[in-house]
Amino acid sequence: MKRSVFFVSESTGITAETLGHSLLAQFEGVDFETGYQPYINTASRALELAERFGQLTAEEGVRPIVFATMVDREVGDILRGSSCYYVEVLDAFMGGLSEELGVAPTRKVGQSHGLRNLEMYDKRIDTINFAMANDDGMRLDNFAEADVILMGVSRCGKTPTCLYLAMHYGLRAANYPLTPDDFEKDEIPLQLVPFRHKIFGLTIDPLRLHKVRETRRPGSEYASLARCQTELRQATRMFSRLAIPVLDTTSQSIEELAARLVKML
Amino acid sequence: MKRSVFFVSESTGITAETLGHSLLAQFEGVDFETGYQPYINTASRALELAERFGQLTAEEGVRPIVFATMVDREVGDILRGSSCYYVEVLDAFMGGLSEELGVAPTRKVGQSHGLRNLEMYDKRIDTINFAMANDDGMRLDNFAEADVILMGVSRCGKTPTCLYLAMHYGLRAANYPLTPDDFEKDEIPLQLVPFRHKIFGLTIDPLRLHKVRETRRPGSEYASLARCQTELRQATRMFSRLAIPVLDTTSQSIEELAARLVKML
Repeated sequence: MKRSVFFVSESTGITAETLGHSLLAQFEGVDFETGYQPYINTASRALELAERFGQLTAEEGVRPIVFATMVDREVGDILRGSSCYYVEVLDAFMGGLSEELGVAPTRKVGQSHGLRNLEMYDKRIDTINFAMANDDGMRLDNFAEADVILMGVSRCGKTPTCLYLAMHYGLRAANYPLTPDDFEKDEIPLQLVPFRHKIFGLTIDPLRLHKVRETRRPGSEYASLARCQTELRQATRMFSRLAIPVLDTTSQSIEELAARLVKML
Repeated sequence: MKRSVFFVSESTGITAETLGHSLLAQFEGVDFETGYQPYINTASRALELAERFGQLTAEEGVRPIVFATMVDREVGDILRGSSCYYVEVLDAFMGGLSEELGVAPTRKVGQSHGLRNLEMYDKRIDTINFAMANDDGMRLDNFAEADVILMGVSRCGKTPTCLYLAMHYGLRAANYPLTPDDFEKDEIPLQLVPFRHKIFGLTIDPLRLHKVRETRRPGSEYASLARCQTELRQATRMFSRLAIPVLDTTSQSIEELAARLVKML
């Protein structure tokens, strides 16, 4: 079974998309074809989209599903009245919340993902830049400033997790790659030792690491399964000796890893 | 007025947090103190949290507000029955959607932000790596592979926007920094010309750019208002001559810029 789905919003559409995806993930056996429609913020744009819903209904024999955050009622009503199964994501909770708070909603558009607080926004951009500048242990002198330091062998998932931690949680995340050089010395760089309490180890299944490295440098010794197995075994031994908590990236997404790290911090 | 707010989930809590923030943004004049509680996936963790809600209610004289995505009903009911204003974000829509689809929800935990489709996940990680490797025009030979190329003067917002495009939309986003050298030649590098159709220009208010650069290199000529004004004027002239569409980063967040870019693509 196939169903067309749209995430529609007057602004970025992030909220409609996030909630919509979570709901769709609860229904198996349906092939959802999703479309993304941000900035539907005028009646004419809404009318255009409503027309498309009508066409799709005729073509597919079933109406599209629409997840929307339309704070402006006039524009939203055009979609609500069109040929679709319309889910207004915010409205369902607005009345109850307003009563609980004793405050009326402003119904202003684009409040949640905009630049509401410039100082906080700048801080977040700053953490992204920090993650970029402190990727792959490029600068050993910045670890004091980090909120968290991820450690692990090459391609085990340090960089994307650091970037997600910065972007989503505003954390200053640095990372340090364990190399054969570190394993030979059998210790971590002296500069890292004082910050052991904020170091987290990442590990990964050797076969998966092998595949990831193969995409990068096909047929190399670096990508060989034997080398992956050895490096991961040495890393695990080092984490355990230094009592560094370890997370496995094999079956966890960067979203899940980041959420677990934040909970552990 | 102060109110305590919690985002609670059995897995990452991303959905509860995103929707919760969007809803709270609609209520002005309330000072929301937010807490983040992912991985509340056992009865004992839920009981612990329920106890905390009770203490907070006693301390603050008002119950906390809880946005939750608790797919497992047994664990969720512990929170629902505790001293809080409980908003279950997914349940409100599950019944209607199930009816529309003619399919029962699986009620499986952690479906939306996990590694459901490894191939798609790897593609997304690949785009993040692409954005990292093609930051600040470091490699002029990779532009053919890019879905989008952001162009603009130093510190106008290219890098964070590229990373967001990669992370959230799975787009291969490269960027090219316009430098005084480009302005002197009054043309963009030859390698970029064939890809003019996928180039977008970023601009920013000179005073804001001046402040951003001052944080980076205080008192430098690079950060001076005069230099910022000149560079931005030259960039605008270049964008207009090459008919490159321009986005202003002064009052838009990376989320908003990314959504607009995706809409334009």
